[in-house]
Amino acid sequence: MEVNHTDMQSDSCDPDRPAAHPGIFPTREAGKSDLQPAERSVDFPVSVVLPAGGTGERTGLQTPKQFCSFLGRPLISYTIQAFERVSWIQSIVVVVAKENMELMTDIVQRFQHGKVRAVPGGSTRHRSICNGVLALGEEEEEEEEEEVRPEVVIIHDAVRPFVDEDFLYSIATAAKEHGAAGAVRPLVSTVIATTSDGFLDHSLERAKYRASEMPQGFTYDVIYRAYQRCSESDFEFGTECLHLALQYCGTKAKLIQGPPTLWKVTYKRDLAAAESIIKDALSRSACVITGGSARAATLADALQEAVGAHGTELDVIPDLMGENARCLLKEWNFIQLSVNRSFLSDVEAMLTVLEAANRALLHPLVVIWVHLSDSDELSVSGRAAEPAAIMDLASAAKLRNILLYGIQLHQSKDTERWERSVSRVAEITSALIRERSPALVGQLLQA
Amino acid sequence: MEVNHTDMQSDSCDPDRPAAHPGIFPTREAGKSDLQPAERSVDFPVSVVLPAGGTGERTGLQTPKQFCSFLGRPLISYTIQAFERVSWIQSIVVVVAKENMELMTDIVQRFQHGKVRAVPGGSTRHRSICNGVLALGEEEEEEEEEEVRPEVVIIHDAVRPFVDEDFLYSIATAAKEHGAAGAVRPLVSTVIATTSDGFLDHSLERAKYRASEMPQGFTYDVIYRAYQRCSESDFEFGTECLHLALQYCGTKAKLIQGPPTLWKVTYKRDLAAAESIIKDALSRSACVITGGSARAATLADALQEAVGAHGTELDVIPDLMGENARCLLKEWNFIQLSVNRSFLSDVEAMLTVLEAANRALLHPLVVIWVHLSDSDELSVSGRAAEPAAIMDLASAAKLRNILLYGIQLHQSKDTERWERSVSRVAEITSALIRERSPALVGQLLQA
Repeated sequence: MEVNHTDMQSDSCDPDRPAAHPGIFPTREAGKSDLQPAERSVDFPVSVVLPAGGTGERTGLQTPKQFCSFLGRPLISYTIQAFERVSWIQSIVVVVAKENMELMTDIVQRFQHGKVRAVPGGSTRHRSICNGVLALGEEEEEEEEEEVRPEVVIIHDAVRPFVDEDFLYSIATAAKEHGAAGAVRPLVSTVIATTSDGFLDHSLERAKYRASEMPQGFTYDVIYRAYQRCSESDFEFGTECLHLALQYCGTKAKLIQGPPTLWKVTYKRDLAAAESIIKDALSRSACVITGGSARAATLADALQEAVGAHGTELDVIPDLMGENARCLLKEWNFIQLSVNRSFLSDVEAMLTVLEAANRALLHPLVVIWVHLSDSDELSVSGRAAEPAAIMDLASAAKLRNILLYGIQLHQSKDTERWERSVSRVAEITSALIRERSPALVGQLLQA
Repeated sequence: MEVNHTDMQSDSCDPDRPAAHPGIFPTREAGKSDLQPAERSVDFPVSVVLPAGGTGERTGLQTPKQFCSFLGRPLISYTIQAFERVSWIQSIVVVVAKENMELMTDIVQRFQHGKVRAVPGGSTRHRSICNGVLALGEEEEEEEEEEVRPEVVIIHDAVRPFVDEDFLYSIATAAKEHGAAGAVRPLVSTVIATTSDGFLDHSLERAKYRASEMPQGFTYDVIYRAYQRCSESDFEFGTECLHLALQYCGTKAKLIQGPPTLWKVTYKRDLAAAESIIKDALSRSACVITGGSARAATLADALQEAVGAHGTELDVIPDLMGENARCLLKEWNFIQLSVNRSFLSDVEAMLTVLEAANRALLHPLVVIWVHLSDSDELSVSGRAAEPAAIMDLASAAKLRNILLYGIQLHQSKDTERWERSVSRVAEITSALIRERSPALVGQLLQA
């Protein structure tokens, strides 16, 4: 094994997973001071340019990858969210190809990205970034906005959704101090030089080189002047902003080693990887509502242990009133326990509360109704009506990005049988929360 | 967008997906001449050394990544399978750390890897590869084996499971011709040189350099001599076999651009990506068994269209007898339709056939029982018994790596309602096949 970056098993030390649920709690949504304290802030205006101009033409893409969706939302919206949650970032300019302007505007509206402005891109990466930088310079002229021209501009890729606040802070402050700063990563492969006929010429000494990644930061003056002075050939063929800053402004960029989470979504497999990271983040905990019943509380305790073994922590509360309403702001998964009541009114009430909290805007919520009935036998009466009722409720909830499932559990005096049932509820619950399958909503599963 | 390697949407031109279902049809299992014709063969003996010596110590790994499992099988077994299905590869030496020898032997036995021998590794990557090469040299002494000392040795990483036969052919023949050959990929990031105090010194011209990847191939003599002659420092700190061949044998390796599928599973996210690629390959088609009933055939036709829209092709056959038994060798998913019969005997018979064919050794099979009943209402009689019966059947099948699910569908004279039901069966079927969730086996879902 040449490179052993990380532990793929232990969650506690996985550098592949972004710190602090990346963008999972946008500040405006969850009240940042409470749940997501920003450790450090900057005292100068910072804005972001996000080139997203690829149309896929070069490779015959049907959908450019920044617009590919997972869990119902395009990749670029996840990246935007990573910046929007940072309190000291004042604005984000997304540069898109003309033919995608309308699509981008729809995304901004649909997911309520308040800090974002979309501007049309140029024919190359540098032309697009340059357009974004110029658009930031115009900001002070727009008097209705409170924004001022940024002192530091952060440039990032639309397809690197997991950048975290701490690293952005490092880049922004280093850019302010040195004029330019960029993320680097160790090389994962040996870099070799080839002869013109395709043979090995020599291999580079790995330790002396780094891979240049994103984000990069520049003072506005440096990046503006670099683009004013650079040549047509730079605009046409260049890719590296740090190089332009060095060549045209004499600014040597400070290089900062970034976390592996800066990785770029390039292949279809990367989309699966990104989805898996988001699903992990959404599955870390769930809130169990007992309705105050003692028997439900006992079941909740049993589930707490069993579901915990699958890696999901359970918070047990009687209801979502008063102090407990904080669960609405921090949870993506809710388990409603009902004992002997075959009515779905408990679930209906919860759906109403969740909707009112606008919690399913950015991520699908999972709601699992666990119905504990008394008889050892399946209760024939009533069963015929339930599956249809929960299916109807689930179909309506799905339209609002809430995924509702049901689990039927039967009380048993046979301890072994009861424990097997509880462990099956736990297994099914964990799977439903992790997989978030829209196809299975409304099913009443048997434990 | 700097690099736009691939179309993430269109399956038909996705270079991220290995050609010809990577290792999905091992030759010994499916009769290579029939289903997986080897286009080209080599006329000299070729063996493989697979260094898998990482213990995770360096990064505090609990489980080294080559032993991490997905879909019930460790990563290294997928990589081994990719080589075993190539007819002209005679043997594979896996080099593992002493403390993992027993684990490796278990894996070889459990997944019936007939071409594999495990040998203990050394303290560094080069020492491990060297052990593997020496082990291959001893093969001619073991008289009971038919193997001869290989002329060409392919060296690969245990954590690159998607290498395909065509590329192995290119490497093997180039190694035979030139003494050494290696896979390269274009650089995905700009490579930069840093000053000692962490600033940008200069950036390399990307076009002149390549990333050196695996597999690599050598004639036995070249790799053997390179290891005989190289220094302790090479053994200790070196990583690049091509470099040793150049330095100690004067052999300039032929460099061949490999497909993006050569990528290395490094982070936890890569495991999710690998799982997704395998799941895609397993979900491409399914076999529907109608039992000969005309109404089942009509339902099958409707499903064929609806499931096809989700990307899974359906083969409709009346049974698994005679010529139709070929489906057993090429499918990973089976849908059994039953009309009005609430018995599970159809499914039981199919499970028996699948087990006899030993099809679930390397991948979990999905079996979906679709039960079409006549009444518009849920049939109350009989229902109570079925969920328990299918759950028992599913629990037993799961132990043999067969995932059984049920879907209940009700005939309706209301066309709109009927179409909605069929489309829900299609949606559920596609999700069950794609997700292969062990937690949901035995459930009788409602369409």
